[in-house]
Amino acid sequence: MKPDWIAVDWGTSNLRAWAMGPDGVQAETSAALGMGQLAPADFEPALLGLIAPWLGAAAMPVIACGMVGARQGWFEAPYRAVPCAPVAAGQLIAVPTQDPRLRVRLVSGLKQTAPADVMRGEETQIAGALTLLRDFDGILCLPGTHSKWVHVSAGEVVSFQSFMTGEIFALLRQHSVLRHGIAEGWNDAAFDAALSQALSRPEKIAARLFSLRAESLLENLSPELAFARLSGLLIGIELAAAKPYWLGQRVVLIGAPQLCSPYARALAAQGLQPETLDATACTLSGLALARGLL
Amino acid sequence: MKPDWIAVDWGTSNLRAWAMGPDGVQAETSAALGMGQLAPADFEPALLGLIAPWLGAAAMPVIACGMVGARQGWFEAPYRAVPCAPVAAGQLIAVPTQDPRLRVRLVSGLKQTAPADVMRGEETQIAGALTLLRDFDGILCLPGTHSKWVHVSAGEVVSFQSFMTGEIFALLRQHSVLRHGIAEGWNDAAFDAALSQALSRPEKIAARLFSLRAESLLENLSPELAFARLSGLLIGIELAAAKPYWLGQRVVLIGAPQLCSPYARALAAQGLQPETLDATACTLSGLALARGLL
Repeated sequence: MKPDWIAVDWGTSNLRAWAMGPDGVQAETSAALGMGQLAPADFEPALLGLIAPWLGAAAMPVIACGMVGARQGWFEAPYRAVPCAPVAAGQLIAVPTQDPRLRVRLVSGLKQTAPADVMRGEETQIAGALTLLRDFDGILCLPGTHSKWVHVSAGEVVSFQSFMTGEIFALLRQHSVLRHGIAEGWNDAAFDAALSQALSRPEKIAARLFSLRAESLLENLSPELAFARLSGLLIGIELAAAKPYWLGQRVVLIGAPQLCSPYARALAAQGLQPETLDATACTLSGLALARGLL
Repeated sequence: MKPDWIAVDWGTSNLRAWAMGPDGVQAETSAALGMGQLAPADFEPALLGLIAPWLGAAAMPVIACGMVGARQGWFEAPYRAVPCAPVAAGQLIAVPTQDPRLRVRLVSGLKQTAPADVMRGEETQIAGALTLLRDFDGILCLPGTHSKWVHVSAGEVVSFQSFMTGEIFALLRQHSVLRHGIAEGWNDAAFDAALSQALSRPEKIAARLFSLRAESLLENLSPELAFARLSGLLIGIELAAAKPYWLGQRVVLIGAPQLCSPYARALAAQGLQPETLDATACTLSGLALARGLL
């Protein structure tokens, strides 16, 4: 049985595709082939390598979001300026392909002029979240490599702000002097204390980071505690800066559980009761919405 | 002509040695061989490979500072606890060697219990600076991979604090998404504006970093301006946190000119008139002092 259409989430590092039928997902597949590894001419063969078994004689609609539409991606899908609906009718970008069985459309990212900011991929998750939540007005938070805080009202993205939290966490953990004393692990009390320190004195971040190293040398700080504290420090300064977004607001987190869980804990400590939506569910809802708007 | 002794600065990445005679430096040599590349058994051959031409029949005093004395270095020179003189009589650590022509002594690093902090190598520069400045009471700032702010009084290090500023700068510039839009360069106005932003709203750092990326995409921010702004942002949050050290104090910077110059500009913008000492001159003065205290 062939799908009605194919949903694609194509980021910097990964390509994921879903065969979509009348009742939703029929099959899924993925590969570690992202914009970071591919030249423009490599995208079509990479996609065909994954989805060929799902193709028939007729042209198959493929709706894709993410860095695939960046200037260094397959084909540039220009940013749309906020305020605007996250995904809008008539705005998908057609990609020329060699194989006539493919009919590829890209979802554009969003841009904001002041302060300058951009997103690609998250706009689709936001559109999906608005479909799932119905009549949502409030704040969406999408933790990740470049976390996004998004103010949504009347079906439009009003404003948003990105934070390099996830990328800084990965760089410090893998490439800095802290790597000698950090290992995946968790400790609620260590996370909470670091979060509170960072929220109250965010400017001390570069010193508190070094003290993870010093405590590891002088006090045998456990690598798992260091992991939780690093997470608390970096989420803490993000929350300190994003306060105008979340203070007194309804906040919905969108992401994988292990990404959302420390943010939910951190927001709960500020008296909020954030809801959580699964990132993949939002992506698929958003791509389905985009297809419907073609 | 053989030297009286040999001064060695041996860090994570580099080994530098100076042949010292009655009138100071007779010759110098260096190699990109630091603690990061060497196992304990590699240190003696690495040193001999550089300084063998300076050795005679008699045992040659070699005074070394830096990561060579770390637990992962040649031979551990335990940290001394502040408050204490940066280098003190009877505190040098003798290193066992196979070659009888070597008589190696290491300068210990310093540690602080609360907040936990450590230094290795800087204590020697501090000792040298105190020799050069005479009766100095005040604040020393040593910009670098892990910048140090040091309160000195009555010949002792009273307290100090380290910041990961230099390491974070290098990671962001070389490994993060910002690498696409940053190139070595300078712009005073861009540095000053970023410095001021970071000093007044330090918690926004992770968002302001991402806006370098967004402005590069949306407004063709020049890579040289981005470099100066990144420097201003990171030095700005360091100054915000180190304010209890520098506010109303006499500050002396120790470092290479290209490292000290943005710190001097940043401190001048806060109304200070920092002096600057050359890092190598301080290291050599400190090692000479250590030799005299043997």
